[in-house]
Amino acid sequence: MGGGKVKARLGRGFRDLLPEQMLARQWMIDVIRRVYEGYGFVPLDTPAVEYLDVLTGSSGDETEHSIFEVANPEMHKEERKLGLRFDLTVPLARVMAQYADLPRPFRRYQVCSVWRTDKPGPGRFREFTQFDLDTVGSKSELADTEIIAGMCDTLDGLKVGGYRVRYSSRRVLNLLIPFAGIPEEQSPEVFRVLDKLDKIGVKKVRLELTTGYKDESGDPIKGLGLSSDQVGKIERFLDVRADERGEVLVRLREMLCGVASAEEEIDTLDRISRHLQTLGYGDDRVVVDLSIARGMAYYTGPVFEAILLDAPEFGTVFGGGRYDELVMRFLGQRIPATGASIGVDRLLAALVHLGRVPLHSSTAKVLVTTMDSSLNDEYLGLAYELRRANIPTELFLGSGGVGKQMKYADRQGIPVAVLLGEDEKNKGVVTLKSLEEGRARSGELAERKDWIQERPGQIEVPRSDLVSAVKAMLFDTGETS
Amino acid sequence: MGGGKVKARLGRGFRDLLPEQMLARQWMIDVIRRVYEGYGFVPLDTPAVEYLDVLTGSSGDETEHSIFEVANPEMHKEERKLGLRFDLTVPLARVMAQYADLPRPFRRYQVCSVWRTDKPGPGRFREFTQFDLDTVGSKSELADTEIIAGMCDTLDGLKVGGYRVRYSSRRVLNLLIPFAGIPEEQSPEVFRVLDKLDKIGVKKVRLELTTGYKDESGDPIKGLGLSSDQVGKIERFLDVRADERGEVLVRLREMLCGVASAEEEIDTLDRISRHLQTLGYGDDRVVVDLSIARGMAYYTGPVFEAILLDAPEFGTVFGGGRYDELVMRFLGQRIPATGASIGVDRLLAALVHLGRVPLHSSTAKVLVTTMDSSLNDEYLGLAYELRRANIPTELFLGSGGVGKQMKYADRQGIPVAVLLGEDEKNKGVVTLKSLEEGRARSGELAERKDWIQERPGQIEVPRSDLVSAVKAMLFDTGETS
Repeated sequence: MGGGKVKARLGRGFRDLLPEQMLARQWMIDVIRRVYEGYGFVPLDTPAVEYLDVLTGSSGDETEHSIFEVANPEMHKEERKLGLRFDLTVPLARVMAQYADLPRPFRRYQVCSVWRTDKPGPGRFREFTQFDLDTVGSKSELADTEIIAGMCDTLDGLKVGGYRVRYSSRRVLNLLIPFAGIPEEQSPEVFRVLDKLDKIGVKKVRLELTTGYKDESGDPIKGLGLSSDQVGKIERFLDVRADERGEVLVRLREMLCGVASAEEEIDTLDRISRHLQTLGYGDDRVVVDLSIARGMAYYTGPVFEAILLDAPEFGTVFGGGRYDELVMRFLGQRIPATGASIGVDRLLAALVHLGRVPLHSSTAKVLVTTMDSSLNDEYLGLAYELRRANIPTELFLGSGGVGKQMKYADRQGIPVAVLLGEDEKNKGVVTLKSLEEGRARSGELAERKDWIQERPGQIEVPRSDLVSAVKAMLFDTGETS
Repeated sequence: MGGGKVKARLGRGFRDLLPEQMLARQWMIDVIRRVYEGYGFVPLDTPAVEYLDVLTGSSGDETEHSIFEVANPEMHKEERKLGLRFDLTVPLARVMAQYADLPRPFRRYQVCSVWRTDKPGPGRFREFTQFDLDTVGSKSELADTEIIAGMCDTLDGLKVGGYRVRYSSRRVLNLLIPFAGIPEEQSPEVFRVLDKLDKIGVKKVRLELTTGYKDESGDPIKGLGLSSDQVGKIERFLDVRADERGEVLVRLREMLCGVASAEEEIDTLDRISRHLQTLGYGDDRVVVDLSIARGMAYYTGPVFEAILLDAPEFGTVFGGGRYDELVMRFLGQRIPATGASIGVDRLLAALVHLGRVPLHSSTAKVLVTTMDSSLNDEYLGLAYELRRANIPTELFLGSGGVGKQMKYADRQGIPVAVLLGEDEKNKGVVTLKSLEEGRARSGELAERKDWIQERPGQIEVPRSDLVSAVKAMLFDTGETS
């Protein structure tokens, strides 16, 4: 440890989660876990470190996926390079390929960090947490329905207020190409441009689909040369809307009645809609919205995403869809799968912004103060008695007088303090202090001598009544849980 | 994704945790979390990736700590190299140095992966989980007492059966050197040899302290040249034992009565013993044992570790001690700290070995079977009704008949299945099947026709009685939680 001081600092794009944030995050993750365990999803854990070719596929380019490379201590054995996972879906695909005797369907959730080398920015980190849930090995739209229903249950469980889950289908969206009379080979570039809708807006998308334009810096953005008739059809397609899911699907069916293979996929969207209706997930919560794209390359069927109505600026907090090709990379065969991913950090930021998540920097409800080291056994005894009654209790372990200890409790948001000195001990009593009430009353009592006489929020109780008196005080301060 | 198949595999020393293991681990971590949150410890999270100099100290050598290096995308800016953390204590020290306004004392727990490049072996992985808890900023032995008490509460909470927490003090152990009349400058090498006691045994340690010996391969191991009188004193020192903690300390005090500074530290061990006694942690659970070393270089005061009496072969499952120098690296000043670390994987392996951890591969208590897709809305409705009654329920989403679905439930350990066909629907009933009872009875019923007539463990109930009938069946199969 010699050699002078090291500056305590973090790498760019990394951050710590201090207790207040961590307690909020744990609360959130526990709620989500309970929802999905209720659906029969089971937890999985995979290592952060995987072989690069597993992460990228055999023809993969790690820069494409922004992968952090990790030095491999086995490299002298001609092993492949290692890297940090950039998502939780690729490791799931590897697991499905590697363990032949996993049950099918396999429904797992995984809540873990992922790493990307992308340039960090406000709210964008190089290490962040995802909560993923997937059903692998089911072709049934019941699986998609349960993903959507679970999204609703999660957002209800987190008490986010209003939200909207939007769903559509990648396969329906693909029909846009023949519908607009666009040659099939132009399809990838058309979708690449459409995927920018949220980012650059409809006007620039229209220009990029047709004649092109110059961006702010004056650089020319090439157009795809579509006709205005073709663009009109695209806009008509994406803009099919109605107050009810069923009505959207009816209109879509009318519009696409000439197009082969439309019926089957619209039937799927219809069945999902009806199933959701049966379970009480109505049009107020779940809508069909053809304009959602959800990463063009990846999905092969229904896609879904959720936004918070009271905090739409946080964007999609929950999104996913059906994908059937991911295990291909390992097994050379298709396995149907559908799932969704929660951006844990983004959703938590939105909940904090909305004031919907309890923020505490302590788990303790009681601070047992320590002012006379000859009474340490007494203090420990008080703390243990409270803990055994399931009241989270902190024993003050620092140095400093009562004032400092009260300040500590106050700052930590600990609502009740227990005080015991030689006098109290001899009288067989303890003093309880409600920090909430003390704070409220000390505003009212202007005179210092009033304050001393009244000692707001402070009571003396028999030592034997400790637990019941603390419980009553916690109840009064609203700390009933 | 083109370019042929990739072999699904893991790097050497890495592993997956499949659902059965993960559910057990989550149960264990939740128990530990509850214990320490009850003590007022709060969670902290730090990134997996840190600067190498933060991890190793300014004169640090990353190979010494077996650190995985991570490529830094900012290297062109002459930033330092990055690496994966190898423990949770160094990041805690960084956090204490970096956030001046954290409360003091700061009591945090952190449960996270750490990575080491060490050669993997049976039960030794390159990525593993630690559960660390530390109190930073308290000199009081109350802090050490609470660490030990928390260790007991944790092991009780996990129902490990018998265990023993052993404690001692690094400062007392240091007194061994003057006691045995060994020159101070020989102290590091003496402790280096003593630290091997568990690994190589007392006989080889004695030889290495004196004349040296030849190991199995015939290589000479140099001796330190201590006299047999000195070694005798070392053995006498380490072997101070008694049935009661108090008695050990009395004998130690007698033995060291001539040695300066012994009194103060023995007083500390004595106060810890008395505090523990007051709280009911008796000599059956917590002993004073001078032979525990706990990594010689690191600790500066009381040290503690726990072993399981029914599975001593798993070694120390929980260990820690007081350390005051770690924040030095960053701040250039001492901050008193004490803490412990749980080897999550090792403790879990021991619990599984002892059969003390419930092993399930599913969270669901009920499987709603799906055999007629025209009844999908019904099936969803059954599942949702059960979930809303807080009964974890899985809807079968695969393909295949009743037989396959029953096999799935059985394999997943789901105790109850719900069956509904057109007939039942028209009659307004559902069929419930207890997989436990079915399995038990099908052994008794030799004849296939008996089995069909009796349908063991299978009952028909009115559709409206679904929830209560399922609850009753779960109660009968012992699934009351």
